[in-house]
Amino acid sequence: MSFVRSVVPEFEAANHKYAAHFNEGNLPLPPGRKVAVVACMDARLDPAKVLGLQEGDAHVIRNAGGRTIDAVRSLVISQQLLGTREIVIIHHTDCGMLTFSDAEIKTKIRHELKEDADHIAFLPFGDIKQSILDDIAVLKKNPLVLDVPITGYIYDVKTGEIAKVEE
Amino acid sequence: MSFVRSVVPEFEAANHKYAAHFNEGNLPLPPGRKVAVVACMDARLDPAKVLGLQEGDAHVIRNAGGRTIDAVRSLVISQQLLGTREIVIIHHTDCGMLTFSDAEIKTKIRHELKEDADHIAFLPFGDIKQSILDDIAVLKKNPLVLDVPITGYIYDVKTGEIAKVEE
Repeated sequence: MSFVRSVVPEFEAANHKYAAHFNEGNLPLPPGRKVAVVACMDARLDPAKVLGLQEGDAHVIRNAGGRTIDAVRSLVISQQLLGTREIVIIHHTDCGMLTFSDAEIKTKIRHELKEDADHIAFLPFGDIKQSILDDIAVLKKNPLVLDVPITGYIYDVKTGEIAKVEE
Repeated sequence: MSFVRSVVPEFEAANHKYAAHFNEGNLPLPPGRKVAVVACMDARLDPAKVLGLQEGDAHVIRNAGGRTIDAVRSLVISQQLLGTREIVIIHHTDCGMLTFSDAEIKTKIRHELKEDADHIAFLPFGDIKQSILDDIAVLKKNPLVLDVPITGYIYDVKTGEIAKVEE
């Protein structure tokens, strides 16, 4: 893969600039605003910018789709060991998870990688609002997750706005 | 929990400001820099600021510890459906994952929640450098993950600097 231009030199140069002006070296380990954010990994979504988070404010858990069933380990650690007492979920418009089915990606992997991915639930969804409601329900039903306020938002990648999801 | 001050009004106010100056409404879905970053959920670590990421650049997957075994679903989607061809892993100094054992958190949950969490591997670690090396090896061995460049860094929460981990 040596012919591919790696991002590593650019990342290291950017970090050099960041560290040169770094003033957040004395923040405590537990999140100051006692919240855990669960958001999609999408490249267009920067949860810190979208929600006004500063270093030290919040745990940010991200995965494909921002699915909460895939965030339970992290949320339990966040609540039990680091004291967060609120959860905010962000899914978004034009999500890649709307573009495939679990069967389709498994077939693609079988064809292209010659591998079996039947042991992974890829967790795509067909409706963003429903995926948020489902993901809130997953946490409400899980006895390992504390009964804390949970708010779900749809982030609009065209406008930068979040819209709260109500039942 | 109504006596607890929620972050929601503050998040919505911050988002209103972000959206008012939003100019990134026409970015494509696939990450422009073809990289997936796997990082810890720690509140003090902002991967976009630390690595100089702009909206649209990179998938960012985050969980407790930045453990790659917990990111495989997301990485396969990132590579197979959205074309990323590089992985960057960030663990960090003073990580919460260095402060407990899997047995300890399970005992705590049993005492405080009266629940059994034996079905979850919480994935703490005792050494940051080794956790990065282990997490690179996990991906190198996984036949569902493409043979792409993988770089691991330790982020120093005191200085803002990343240091590449070499074997």
